[in-house]
Amino acid sequence: MSAPALDVIAIGNAIVDVMSPCDDALIAQLGLNRGGMTLIDTDRARELYAAMGPAREISGGSAANTLAGLAALGARCAFIGQVADDQLGEVFAHDIRASGIAFHTPARPGDPPTARCLIFVTPDGQRTMNTYLGASQFLPAAALDEAAIASAAVLYLEGYLWDPEEPRAAMRRAIAAARGAGRKVAFTLSDSFVIDRHGADFNALIERGEIDILFANEHELAALTGKADFHEGIAMLAAKVPALVVTRSEKGAFAVAAGEQAEVAAEPVARVVDTTGAGDLFAAGFLFGHVRGRPLAECLKLGAICAGEIISHFGARAETDLAELVRNQLA
Amino acid sequence: MSAPALDVIAIGNAIVDVMSPCDDALIAQLGLNRGGMTLIDTDRARELYAAMGPAREISGGSAANTLAGLAALGARCAFIGQVADDQLGEVFAHDIRASGIAFHTPARPGDPPTARCLIFVTPDGQRTMNTYLGASQFLPAAALDEAAIASAAVLYLEGYLWDPEEPRAAMRRAIAAARGAGRKVAFTLSDSFVIDRHGADFNALIERGEIDILFANEHELAALTGKADFHEGIAMLAAKVPALVVTRSEKGAFAVAAGEQAEVAAEPVARVVDTTGAGDLFAAGFLFGHVRGRPLAECLKLGAICAGEIISHFGARAETDLAELVRNQLA
Repeated sequence: MSAPALDVIAIGNAIVDVMSPCDDALIAQLGLNRGGMTLIDTDRARELYAAMGPAREISGGSAANTLAGLAALGARCAFIGQVADDQLGEVFAHDIRASGIAFHTPARPGDPPTARCLIFVTPDGQRTMNTYLGASQFLPAAALDEAAIASAAVLYLEGYLWDPEEPRAAMRRAIAAARGAGRKVAFTLSDSFVIDRHGADFNALIERGEIDILFANEHELAALTGKADFHEGIAMLAAKVPALVVTRSEKGAFAVAAGEQAEVAAEPVARVVDTTGAGDLFAAGFLFGHVRGRPLAECLKLGAICAGEIISHFGARAETDLAELVRNQLA
Repeated sequence: MSAPALDVIAIGNAIVDVMSPCDDALIAQLGLNRGGMTLIDTDRARELYAAMGPAREISGGSAANTLAGLAALGARCAFIGQVADDQLGEVFAHDIRASGIAFHTPARPGDPPTARCLIFVTPDGQRTMNTYLGASQFLPAAALDEAAIASAAVLYLEGYLWDPEEPRAAMRRAIAAARGAGRKVAFTLSDSFVIDRHGADFNALIERGEIDILFANEHELAALTGKADFHEGIAMLAAKVPALVVTRSEKGAFAVAAGEQAEVAAEPVARVVDTTGAGDLFAAGFLFGHVRGRPLAECLKLGAICAGEIISHFGARAETDLAELVRNQLA
């Protein structure tokens, strides 16, 4: 096995976030799933967009956000995801490449358009996401660059993309390619509703030992294990994955790896503006520490610092220099 | 003459801002006109976008920004401008309508695409704008709703749009419609390079008494009058326009109307993040005071408050409730 040419390669939704502040009354009036991620069709997307206030567009996508954080920290990264051949697809491709991430998945001609996520942000900073998957759901297994996957220390996959059939098949093939090359597979559970739909698949992957690093928040941990008690859930999963990382919002995060446990407090933030991307950037910091061989507690700390940056402003892509931000931590 | 149904109707570029922070070295390397607005063609737009870092998209356009501010303050507004029938056109149309502004100009099918402005923001908060006019330059005079123009207390025009031929013709016709209905015409000079190209036209409009309210910054004042001395420039123009408003960045703003003079200091801002839209939002505050019949000094103060809000964050559309922000001022 040769030294990895890439630190992390990820497969995820290639999506542009359409973000707008809103009040709680609008969330109720539109019947939105507050704080969660709901898949929406064309008609619902039109309805929600019409009801949304003036918005701004910022590239998003869970795994893509994580890579943008990793690249900002100095990791070598590549992304695989499906955009359409349209203006939002150009925006997504520009932003990810401008972040220093290799991205070669060809744009898909014709309908449907590039994916977008309509995000309503309430005054408490909570984000309510409504995802129109568009082209993203047609990522074909043929788009995988298996040589690139084999050359990356870590293959990172987002659970959100387990819903549509083609990307699910692509991700299964990617897992085989990574494992065949002796690389690690990291997986984020993404959302408890995704677990409602695909928990059996996720548990099967874990039972077969195909996941090396598992990211979850405490709700997802409970949904996957069926254990309402946090520590029971941890105990159940930690036995099955080499590294388990569980984020707990303002309560910080917890990890178990190779029998060792570690915990970190949430970073203090002057004002929580928008929590979009908090988990994604936590994963970025953690994985950066991991690929650099740092101790478990330090990986958690890096995750907390990156998550703290992202929730202090609108959008899931960093606004400050993450490498500078974590420099003291890594000194 | 009936009471106006609208406070302000504006004609301007229908444009989406593509904004990214950058360092001064990139400005030099790309040969950009620091702090100014440069018109660019398709090839240059592609070149600059490729060199730009990860960006965010926020609806812009000088007059459209002014209307968004006016609407947020509580004014009744309508916008006339040309988008293409594409995704960025949808974004622009959504954002302006979601701001409560009437917008009925039909999207233009086919090429060119919707206008965009590639904005490089340096660490001092200065914005360097590179405008691809796209569909915006094909606003036909036929798109004017002359009844709407006749029903608005003020017709507001942006100098930027004087460059392309069709909108220039449309604006001339709009001026005639407004004046024919006994309404006021407000004009913003936009940029000193625009004055280099069209100063003779602007001076002719002024000499003919077709401009009731003229907005300029001090560079534009000097370019239009040929007077390097601020007070000489003011004296020369004030004799020809019923209201003259000159903004001076951190030195505040100055106005002369009906023989009366007034001045305002710039609002204190914790950190100047991005000056994009400062003049546009100053005009919004001033015009709001004007259509509400407030004293000249108060109109200036409203302008300064709105400009202060816009330079404290990225983008030229307000992030805080402007009506709330100026409430004490209007109490």
